Amino acid sequence: MEIVKNIPGGVAAAKGFKAAGVYCGVKRAGYPTNTVTAASILANENIQREHKPDLALIVSEVPCTAAAVFTRNLVKGAPIVVCKDHLAKSKIRAIIANSGNANTCNFDGVEKAEAMCAAAAEALGINAEEVLVASTGVIGQILPIEPIQDGIPYLVKNLAADGTKAAEAIMTTDTVCKQYAVQVTIGGQTVTIGAMTKGSGMIHPNMATMLAFVTTDCAISSEMLDKALRSVVGDSFNMLSVDGDTSTNDTLAIIASGLAGNDEIAAEGEDFDIFVAALLDVCVYLTRMMAKDGEGATKLIECAVKGGATVADAKTVAKSVICSPLLKSAMFGCDANWGRVLCAIGYSGANTDVTKIDVTFRSAGGEVTVCQNGAGVPFSEEIAKEVLSADEVIVDVTLRDGDAAATAWGCDLTYDYVKINGDYRT
Amino acid sequence: MEIVKNIPGGVAAAKGFKAAGVYCGVKRAGYPTNTVTAASILANENIQREHKPDLALIVSEVPCTAAAVFTRNLVKGAPIVVCKDHLAKSKIRAIIANSGNANTCNFDGVEKAEAMCAAAAEALGINAEEVLVASTGVIGQILPIEPIQDGIPYLVKNLAADGTKAAEAIMTTDTVCKQYAVQVTIGGQTVTIGAMTKGSGMIHPNMATMLAFVTTDCAISSEMLDKALRSVVGDSFNMLSVDGDTSTNDTLAIIASGLAGNDEIAAEGEDFDIFVAALLDVCVYLTRMMAKDGEGATKLIECAVKGGATVADAKTVAKSVICSPLLKSAMFGCDANWGRVLCAIGYSGANTDVTKIDVTFRSAGGEVTVCQNGAGVPFSEEIAKEVLSADEVIVDVTLRDGDAAATAWGCDLTYDYVKINGDYRT
Repeated sequence: MEIVKNIPGGVAAAKGFKAAGVYCGVKRAGYPTNTVTAASILANENIQREHKPDLALIVSEVPCTAAAVFTRNLVKGAPIVVCKDHLAKSKIRAIIANSGNANTCNFDGVEKAEAMCAAAAEALGINAEEVLVASTGVIGQILPIEPIQDGIPYLVKNLAADGTKAAEAIMTTDTVCKQYAVQVTIGGQTVTIGAMTKGSGMIHPNMATMLAFVTTDCAISSEMLDKALRSVVGDSFNMLSVDGDTSTNDTLAIIASGLAGNDEIAAEGEDFDIFVAALLDVCVYLTRMMAKDGEGATKLIECAVKGGATVADAKTVAKSVICSPLLKSAMFGCDANWGRVLCAIGYSGANTDVTKIDVTFRSAGGEVTVCQNGAGVPFSEEIAKEVLSADEVIVDVTLRDGDAAATAWGCDLTYDYVKINGDYRT
Repeated sequence: MEIVKNIPGGVAAAKGFKAAGVYCGVKRAGYPTNTVTAASILANENIQREHKPDLALIVSEVPCTAAAVFTRNLVKGAPIVVCKDHLAKSKIRAIIANSGNANTCNFDGVEKAEAMCAAAAEALGINAEEVLVASTGVIGQILPIEPIQDGIPYLVKNLAADGTKAAEAIMTTDTVCKQYAVQVTIGGQTVTIGAMTKGSGMIHPNMATMLAFVTTDCAISSEMLDKALRSVVGDSFNMLSVDGDTSTNDTLAIIASGLAGNDEIAAEGEDFDIFVAALLDVCVYLTRMMAKDGEGATKLIECAVKGGATVADAKTVAKSVICSPLLKSAMFGCDANWGRVLCAIGYSGANTDVTKIDVTFRSAGGEVTVCQNGAGVPFSEEIAKEVLSADEVIVDVTLRDGDAAATAWGCDLTYDYVKINGDYRT
């Protein structure tokens, strides 16, 4: 099986999908007014050039099977309530999403989320229940619905086979637009999986503060699509942490048009395995992109654990290491303070013999073993500095409890994380 | 019952206790050498003036009943292993503690910790098993024992009824020396409880990266002393978090000389209740001091929860709020981003109805209610800024699930936290 990586088009790469993004002014105070009208924002090329888009639309030519996972936070964004309802009732034709406001903890949140779906449905000539909806941004501020309602017809007019504008429209503190697509051959047909994601802060396993939308032309039953999604999320998005905060609005949705022409995947087997492998590749790629672009981050930290008693133990250890603020700060300072790795393993709650742990730091700059059997070994501080100065650093943790492995992704903790989050609302 | 607060003397305030601190050069590279001798450091007044002490000794005239709680991290500092052994075998006469090196994750850690006890015992003419030992600092570097062995006789010579030097000697990144003492009347006798603590980073419930030593002249059985300690730790030190990292060396020990002359407290009753109330006052005071002096902190954050279904739920909510890096960053920026409070409650794991939560920020600068019944209410950003600019900010969370209350303490997350931890070892 070969996965052809980095296909262009992002979330609009697969057959039957188009996307668009526009700046409609969700965050613009006092809109609409007599002077600030929809036309003055949406049709003004200068304003569109100057502002990051804040409203995204993804559309499928045909009804799609769909699957999704959502935040486990008890405080759930209103869009999540609406998505769950629509997924239970209908196949999916479109996804509408805004940044700049999370539409969460508001008395009228569900009403506004439904209004977003209704506006998209009207402009596309489909049913409101065929639309998924997502919002990301500040919690607890009333969502202005007018700019979104005004913006949707403009989005429909600008739909194209390129996901870039849509991916840009869901960015918040992200500094990099995150999209990716791959192709595999299933049953003799080329199957494409495209995706876009956002997420930079408030990111923690189960799940990140993230929106991730995946589109595919694979013909696959909704049961198997759900199974595929759930089998990859535990090894990708749920192994990501930027700051330990689990957001209220996390949404990962996949919709499948079936237009690739392969025989529908309706059971486990070779076709399903290929699809899952390709989907895992997509999700891990996006996870790494989010970790590397974590708020204020200067580098990606990957913790690769092997030798765990169980996969759950290996995952617990890997997550605990990448979540430690002390280790994250040390990585920022390129300081090989491996005691903090041991410490984080020790309080993780994993079942492990801490006197048998090895730790090695590894990167494009080389590698350096700093701990064997739970105790320090002499190492060159100079080489360690070189290793830790790379923009992707791997912390290899070898346990001696069994054969299980797991990988988690995070980033360093920097001045800029504090700066970004010290005054996010203004 | 009246608690007389802020008695002078710290850990040496209670009858029968003396303490001392000295700079012996634990962190000094290459010591001892031909030119750097014990005398050249310990007897040199200039060197002693220029350096923070790094070795502390607390001594009791008489054998003490003792109780202690230790870190739950699986990686445990060698001194903890030795303390547990000594506590099981003997009453306690002295505590020896160093900063600059945690004596953890070293092949010879237990041997070195025993050597510290042996050196103290020899200088004091007591048994090594009558000595408790603690170390704090970098993990995984071999502890140089010579400076400690050389320093102990000097400590013994300088024992005094003032805990200040000893309290200074256990500081690491602490910016403030932390000691406190109170007096209460038990059975007609004045009972004194004195204490010192250190802890600034790697601080998290169960327990903080902290050393805390409490001395009292109260006559109390070791069973009741243990019971008193365990009953207060859950409402003080275990409700503290600076950064979510649970250290390997956390130690809270209390020793009781019995010299106050009260009838020994050997069962529950009024005397025990007075003692527990005074001990709780001491522990909460020290907890607040540590929170306020959290690494890089500019302010103390207190989360006071009421209306919880159970005390466990109220504690879970309070801890989750003060642990959220996003809220901590917002507090640094004086940004009333209350959505982050709701978010942290939602992912805490507590059993609560999130649609019935009220949130108020309160300080010497005033108070401002920002959320009622889980949704935002209009508030003055100006007043909010004023409230959040104080150096102690209280986040009042009202749940409507029951009658349980709990309080947790933490601090804001600042540039300086990152700076301090980006290069801690050098």
